[in-house]
Amino acid sequence: MNVIQQRLAALRAEIQKLDLDAWFISGTDPHSSEYLPSKWKTREFITGFTGSYGTVVVAKTEAGLWTDTRYFIQAEEQLKGTGVTMYKLRVPDAISPELWLTDKLKSESRVGIDAQTISVSGYRNLQRTLAKKGIELVNTPDLFDAIWENRPQIPRDKIFELETVFAGISRIEKQIQLSSKLNQFNADLLVVSMLDELAWLNNLRGSDISYNPVFVGFGLVGKDGNYLFVNQSKIPVDLLKVLEKDGICIEEYESFYSFISTVKNKRILLDPATANYSIYNSLTKNNEIIEAASPVSLAKAIKNNTELNGFREAMKKDGVALVEFLFWLKSNIGKAKITEYEIGRKLAEFRSKQSNFMGESFPPIVGYKSHGAIVHLNVGIDDAFPVEVEGILLFDSGGQYLDGTTDITRTVALGQVTEQQKKDFTLVLKGMISLTLAEFPLGTKGCHLDILARKPLWENGMNYGHGTGHGVGHFLNVHEGPMAIRQEFNEHRIEPGMVMSNEPAFYREGQYGIRTENMMVCVEKQLTDFGQFLSFETLTICPIDTTLIKPDLLNSIEINWINEYHQRVNVLLKPLLNEELHDFLDGLTAEIK
Amino acid sequence: MNVIQQRLAALRAEIQKLDLDAWFISGTDPHSSEYLPSKWKTREFITGFTGSYGTVVVAKTEAGLWTDTRYFIQAEEQLKGTGVTMYKLRVPDAISPELWLTDKLKSESRVGIDAQTISVSGYRNLQRTLAKKGIELVNTPDLFDAIWENRPQIPRDKIFELETVFAGISRIEKQIQLSSKLNQFNADLLVVSMLDELAWLNNLRGSDISYNPVFVGFGLVGKDGNYLFVNQSKIPVDLLKVLEKDGICIEEYESFYSFISTVKNKRILLDPATANYSIYNSLTKNNEIIEAASPVSLAKAIKNNTELNGFREAMKKDGVALVEFLFWLKSNIGKAKITEYEIGRKLAEFRSKQSNFMGESFPPIVGYKSHGAIVHLNVGIDDAFPVEVEGILLFDSGGQYLDGTTDITRTVALGQVTEQQKKDFTLVLKGMISLTLAEFPLGTKGCHLDILARKPLWENGMNYGHGTGHGVGHFLNVHEGPMAIRQEFNEHRIEPGMVMSNEPAFYREGQYGIRTENMMVCVEKQLTDFGQFLSFETLTICPIDTTLIKPDLLNSIEINWINEYHQRVNVLLKPLLNEELHDFLDGLTAEIK
Repeated sequence: MNVIQQRLAALRAEIQKLDLDAWFISGTDPHSSEYLPSKWKTREFITGFTGSYGTVVVAKTEAGLWTDTRYFIQAEEQLKGTGVTMYKLRVPDAISPELWLTDKLKSESRVGIDAQTISVSGYRNLQRTLAKKGIELVNTPDLFDAIWENRPQIPRDKIFELETVFAGISRIEKQIQLSSKLNQFNADLLVVSMLDELAWLNNLRGSDISYNPVFVGFGLVGKDGNYLFVNQSKIPVDLLKVLEKDGICIEEYESFYSFISTVKNKRILLDPATANYSIYNSLTKNNEIIEAASPVSLAKAIKNNTELNGFREAMKKDGVALVEFLFWLKSNIGKAKITEYEIGRKLAEFRSKQSNFMGESFPPIVGYKSHGAIVHLNVGIDDAFPVEVEGILLFDSGGQYLDGTTDITRTVALGQVTEQQKKDFTLVLKGMISLTLAEFPLGTKGCHLDILARKPLWENGMNYGHGTGHGVGHFLNVHEGPMAIRQEFNEHRIEPGMVMSNEPAFYREGQYGIRTENMMVCVEKQLTDFGQFLSFETLTICPIDTTLIKPDLLNSIEINWINEYHQRVNVLLKPLLNEELHDFLDGLTAEIK
Repeated sequence: MNVIQQRLAALRAEIQKLDLDAWFISGTDPHSSEYLPSKWKTREFITGFTGSYGTVVVAKTEAGLWTDTRYFIQAEEQLKGTGVTMYKLRVPDAISPELWLTDKLKSESRVGIDAQTISVSGYRNLQRTLAKKGIELVNTPDLFDAIWENRPQIPRDKIFELETVFAGISRIEKQIQLSSKLNQFNADLLVVSMLDELAWLNNLRGSDISYNPVFVGFGLVGKDGNYLFVNQSKIPVDLLKVLEKDGICIEEYESFYSFISTVKNKRILLDPATANYSIYNSLTKNNEIIEAASPVSLAKAIKNNTELNGFREAMKKDGVALVEFLFWLKSNIGKAKITEYEIGRKLAEFRSKQSNFMGESFPPIVGYKSHGAIVHLNVGIDDAFPVEVEGILLFDSGGQYLDGTTDITRTVALGQVTEQQKKDFTLVLKGMISLTLAEFPLGTKGCHLDILARKPLWENGMNYGHGTGHGVGHFLNVHEGPMAIRQEFNEHRIEPGMVMSNEPAFYREGQYGIRTENMMVCVEKQLTDFGQFLSFETLTICPIDTTLIKPDLLNSIEINWINEYHQRVNVLLKPLLNEELHDFLDGLTAEIK
C-alpha cells in the first residue's frame, strides 16, 4: 500500500467505528478559505491532489475527488494508484458528489461530515439532496485528528497592525460604520468567520496562510462587545494594549465554539454562504438567526481613497519589477538555461526589491508554449520547461505590498510568432480594452459586463472557460468577493471603489495560452437624467507586448487606448527605473499605428 | 360617491362578512394571462385603472394600486377621486403591496385572496411575507361575483383548428414529444394552465381575448389521457370529431376544479410560476407534485421550420402594409387632419388587406412628439394628438396572421428634425444593430446579451427603462416566455428557433420617444472546438428612416448592415407592392454613406 492507500484505510476504519457509509470532505477550513493553513489541507492529505479546488468523498470501497476543468490533467496524474477516482465538475452532464452518493448508497445510509468545514448553504444543499434518497447526513468530529500523525498545528505566527496610513480608516471607525449596518438589520451580533473580513475589520494582518496576509481567528461583533478569537500568544504585547484600548476583547481561538454555545436570546447576523454549519447549528438553538450577505464583505470590497492611492503606488512598484524582469529575460534568454520555474522565482525577486513588499500574492503561473494553455498551471522545479528564443510565454503573478495587492498577467513573444498567435492575442486584447472602456449605470452586475471581454472571441468561434474578473483585496486576498465579472449570475452590483481584475484569455490546447490581465477600479463617470453612470480606471502599470498585436484588427479607439496607456506607463515608470532601462522602456511603450 | 367608490364600498362589505382586514387582488385571471377576458378585468372594475400591469389591495379604510414606471402618469390620472392610492413599483425604495400590508396591519390580521387568480410562486411569496408579521393569508371565493352586476361571462367564441400547414407539427406529434419529456420527469400528468400553451399544444386557436388568439381552458395531459377543459359549445361539431379521433377528452371548463379533486396517487408536473395556487392546493393533497418550468412553454418557444417560414411570409405582408401606410401618411399629412388614433386604425386597415390576417397582435402604440416618450401609451380618440409636418412619430404595432405574429416599431421624421433627435435615433439604432449581429455560444442567456443594445446609449449617459427583447408566439401571444433579453436574470438560455424582439429605445420626457424594433430568430452560426455558436436572423422586413440617421456616428459594419438590410427589404417587398409605390420604396431603402 502506498501512503495514500494507508491513509484511506485508516480513515475507513474511523468511518466504520461511527457506523457511517461514507464521509464527505468539502476541502476547505472552518473559514471557507480558498488558500488553506496546512492543518486543513485535508484534500491533499487524503488523496495526494494538490490543486486548490476539489471535494472528496470516501465511501466503504470507493473514493472520489471532484474538481473542475482547471485541474483535470493534474488530478488524473496525481491520483494514479491511490484508489481515488477523479470526477469532472462544470462539464455537461457532470455528476456532483451529492448525486454520486445518492446513486451509490441505499436509502437509510449514513453520510458523515465535519460541519465545521462546510458553509451553511453547502450543508443544506448536501442534506437536501441526500434526503431525497432517504440518506441521513450525520455530524462527526474532525476524523483527521485520529489518523493524521504530526498533523500541523494552527500557525502561531505573529499578528501585526496595518497602520491607518495604509488602511485609511481606523478600526474604531470601521466598527461604527458596521454598527449602523447591523442596526439596519436590527441585529445584535455579527459572526465574522472569513479570515480576510476579520483582518480588514480590525486593521490587522498575519502570515498564517501562504500568499494571504491573514491570521486564523473568528470575530463576534455587535452591541454587546467586540470579540476576537485568536491565540493570544500571536499578538505582540504592545498591539494587545492597543486592541484592548480600542475595546476589543481577545479570547482564545479554541474557545470560540464553547463561547457561542452560551449566547442566548440575540438576533445574530450570519452569512450562510461563508459561515460554517457548526456555528449556525450552535447559535440557532437559543437565538434568532438573520441570514444575509456579510456587510463586512461589501464594505471591504469598496476601497477608500487611502487604499486606492496605495494600490496606485503598488502598481508602479509592480511595473518597475516587471520591466526589470523583462529586461533580465531579454538579456539572458538563449544565453543561460532559464526555466518556467526560474522565471517565477525571478518575478518574486524583482518585486522583493520594492518598498513595503510583503510577499507574493499567489503562486506564479508561468506557462511557456503548451504549458500556457493549462489555466491554473503550477509547475515544479522538475517539470518546468526551459524557455528559448521562440514561441510565447504567459506569466501571471502578483505581489503583496503594505500599500496593496497586485495581480497581473502578460503574454510576451520570445521570438518569431505566427499570424495565428498574433490574431489570437489581438482578439483577447480587444476584449480587455472593451471591458476597460465600459460605461454603465449603477446597478449593473458583473454578468452584464462579461460579454464585453468575450465578444471579439465569440465572433471568431472562440472562448475561454473561466471568469473575466474577480475582486482583489487591499493587502489581503488576491481573490475576494462579493462581486465578480463572469457569466454566472451574481446579485452584487459593481460599485465605485471596487477593485477588480480584467483578464480575458484564449488557450490553444497543446500549443500556447494567451491572457492579458490588468487590475482596475470602478469610478463614477457622470450623473445624468438617466442616473449615475460608472466606468473603470486601470490600475496596472505595465507594458503590453505590441509585437503580438495585429493593428489591422483594431479600430481607432482601441489603438488610441493602447498608445495612451503606454504613454502613461512610460511617464510613470521612467523616473523609477535605472537609466540603462530607459531605452528598453521606450521600446516597450512605443506607439503603434 | 362615484362608481369606483360605490364598488369599493360593496367589496368592503363582503370583506367584512368574511372577517378579513384586507383583500388582495393580483390583477390576473386563473391562467396568469397578460391580456384578460373581460370577466377577469377586476383591477379595472375596482379602481378604474386600465393599464395592463398592477396589483390592488383593498383594506378596511385604505386601498392601493401598485404599478410600474410605464403607468405612473396614467394611473395617477385615472385614480383621481377614487380613494385608491397609487404606489410605485420598480423604483428605488419601492414598497411592495406585501410589505405595505405588513406595515399597515397588526399581527394576527387576516388577508383574503382568491387563490385561483395567483400563481403558486406568487401565493407563497405573499404568504411568507405576511407570516413574518403573523398575518394570516385566507383563501376566499371570488368576491367580485357578489358585487359585479352583469359581470361578463367567459366568452363563448368558437374554437378553430390551426392546420398543420401553418403549425408544422400535428397535435399527435406534439403529444408524443411531450410524453417523452414527462417521462424524463417520471411524471404521470402535466397541468396546462397558460392559455397560449394550451392552444399551441392542441393546434387550436380561439378569440376569447382581444389580440391573443387563444380560448379559455385548462389541460391535463399525460399517460392516463389528454383532457381539454373548455365549454363544449365552443367547438364546432366537425372539429369535435377530429379532436376525439386524436384522443382528446373534452370536459366542461367549469368542471376542472372538481375533476382534479378526484385525481389521486399521481406524480403531477406543474409550473409554480404560472399554475394558480388553487390548482396546486387541490392536487397536492392526494398526489406528488413535481415543480418545474413548463415543458410546453419551452417547446412552444422553439419554432419549427414551418412556423419560421410562416413568420417570414407574415413579415413580408407586414412590410407591404407598413410601406403602404407610410405612403398614405406622406401623401395626406398636412392636407387632412390626421391624429395618432387614426394612424393606429390605418395601420390595422393596411394589414387587414393582407392574406390570412386575423387581427392586430396588440393595441397600436402611436406616439407623436411628447406622446412618444410615454412607453406604453394608449391614446383614445379624444386625447390623440393631431400629427403635422414636423417632429417625429413613433409607432409600435403588429398583426396576427395564420402564418405568424408580428411586432414592429418604427420612428419616422415627419419634417425637419434636430441634430439631437438624429443623434438619439442613431445611438438607439447602433444598439439594435449590435444585438442583431451578436454571435454567442449556446448557453448564453438574455441578461448577457442585453448590454449590446444599451452600450451606445450608456456611453452617452442615456438609457431606457424596459427590457430589450421578448419572445413572440406563432399566431399566438405577442409576448411569450420563457426566455427574454433584459437586465433581469432569467435562467432560460437563448436557443436556435426562438423568435424574439430587439427593441432598444430612448425617451426624452415631454419631447419625443425613439424606438426601433425588429423581430429576429436565433439560428446556428458555427460549431468550433469551443462549442456551438449562435447568431440571429432578422425577420422584420420594413425600412428604417434613414433621414434620422447621423452616418458619422456609425462605423462601416453598421453602415453595411443598414444598406444590406434595405437592399433585402427592397428586393422582397417590391414585387408585392403596387407599381406606383416602387419609387417611394426605392427612396426609403436608398443606400446611406
